[in-house]
Amino acid sequence: MENLISALHADISVIGTLKTFRKGARMLDMGMPIAHLYLVVKGRVIMTKNFRNSKKRHICHIMYPGEFVGIGEIFSKEKTSRMSAFALGEEVRAWKIPYFKFELELRQNSNLVDCIILQFIKKRQEIWKRYQRKRSLSSPDVIIEFLKDIAKERGVAENGWIVAQGFTHSELGAYIGICRQSITQTLNSLKKENLIKYNRSEFLINPKLLQK
Amino acid sequence: MENLISALHADISVIGTLKTFRKGARMLDMGMPIAHLYLVVKGRVIMTKNFRNSKKRHICHIMYPGEFVGIGEIFSKEKTSRMSAFALGEEVRAWKIPYFKFELELRQNSNLVDCIILQFIKKRQEIWKRYQRKRSLSSPDVIIEFLKDIAKERGVAENGWIVAQGFTHSELGAYIGICRQSITQTLNSLKKENLIKYNRSEFLINPKLLQK
Repeated sequence: MENLISALHADISVIGTLKTFRKGARMLDMGMPIAHLYLVVKGRVIMTKNFRNSKKRHICHIMYPGEFVGIGEIFSKEKTSRMSAFALGEEVRAWKIPYFKFELELRQNSNLVDCIILQFIKKRQEIWKRYQRKRSLSSPDVIIEFLKDIAKERGVAENGWIVAQGFTHSELGAYIGICRQSITQTLNSLKKENLIKYNRSEFLINPKLLQK
Repeated sequence: MENLISALHADISVIGTLKTFRKGARMLDMGMPIAHLYLVVKGRVIMTKNFRNSKKRHICHIMYPGEFVGIGEIFSKEKTSRMSAFALGEEVRAWKIPYFKFELELRQNSNLVDCIILQFIKKRQEIWKRYQRKRSLSSPDVIIEFLKDIAKERGVAENGWIVAQGFTHSELGAYIGICRQSITQTLNSLKKENLIKYNRSEFLINPKLLQK
C-alpha cells in the first residue's frame, strides 16, 4: 500500500497542481457542479452532508493523506457534488486535479484504479463500523471505541501517552452520531479517570484505554 | 448502466460457469478462504456478518441481479471472506468465477472496472441511507422508509398495488437494524390502515404509502 501511494503521487504530480487550504476552507460544495477532485497530501479533510429530515450537518468521512476527495462523482452521471468538503482543524495541502485529466489517467493507470478501489473498500468499512456501533453500543461506548480507533490507526506514542489529532466536541459528534452534550460528559469522565487528556489540537490517550 | 451490464454478462460467460443455488444455500463462508466470486443473474443474495460484541446476525447487503458477491476480497490482502453469503427466499442463479480469471479479466476490461466501482458507490450509498435513518428516525419511520425504497427501486405495479419481493420479519430486522417485535408491530398497524399487505413471498405496497 505504501508503495502504491508513493507511485501514485508521482503520477498525480503530472496532472495536478499542489494547493494549500487554510483551516475551515471549503474545497467542495454540496449540490454544485464539480470539475476538480483532490488528493490529500497533508492534514485532514471532512466530507459533510446535510440530510433530508435533519437540520444537523453530518460528517460522512474524514479523508487523510493519500486519499481522494470528490472521487465518487467521476463514476456517476451527475457531475454535482454529493457532499461538501472542508479543511479540518489545520492547514491542508492537496493536489487539485481536473476531472478530464484524471479520467484519462484512469484509463491507462491500473495502479490508480487499485488505489481508488482500496479507498472505497476502506471507507465502506469505516461506515460499517460506525453504523454497527450505533446499532449495538451505548453512547459512551461508541465514543470510547472511536478514541481507541484513532489511537491505533493515527496515534503517535509520546511520554507514555498516545497522541492523536484533535476534533472539537461538535465535530466528534457529527462524525459518530452522538450529541455534543454526551460527548462532553463522556470525555470529562474519562479525563477524571486519567484515561485521556485533550486540548483544541490533540487527544492524549492513555494506553490503558486500549485494554478497556 | 443497462448496456454496461449486458456487455458484462457476455464477458463473464467466458470465464465463469452458471450455477443454481437453492433457498438458504451458503455461497460464501465468513472467515474461510475464498477462491471464487459470483455475479448474480436471478434472485437475491444476502451478505451477513456476525459482529464482535453482538450475538445477532446482521444483513450487510442484499445483492440483486447484475451485482457481484465476494468482490471486496480481490483487492485486499487477506483472501478470506469477510462476510457469509446466502441465497435469499428463492432460487438464485449466478455465474461462479475463479478469482485468478477475474483478476486477469480486470486488467484488460475497463467496462468491468466501471461496473465494480459503480457497485461500490451504490452499496456505500445504501449503507449511508440506513445509517442515517438509524441516527435520525424512529423505528416505525425506518421501516416505512425501507418499504418506500423497495417499492420505488424493485416494485412492479399490479392491480393498483406495488408488488415487491418479500422478506421475513427477522430478515427485515437484520437488514435495517430494528428488532423483530417492532417490525411485526409496525407492519401490522400498516396492514390495518390498508397501506400494505404481505405474505411469505411478497410485499404489496399501497401507492398511498409513497406519499407519506
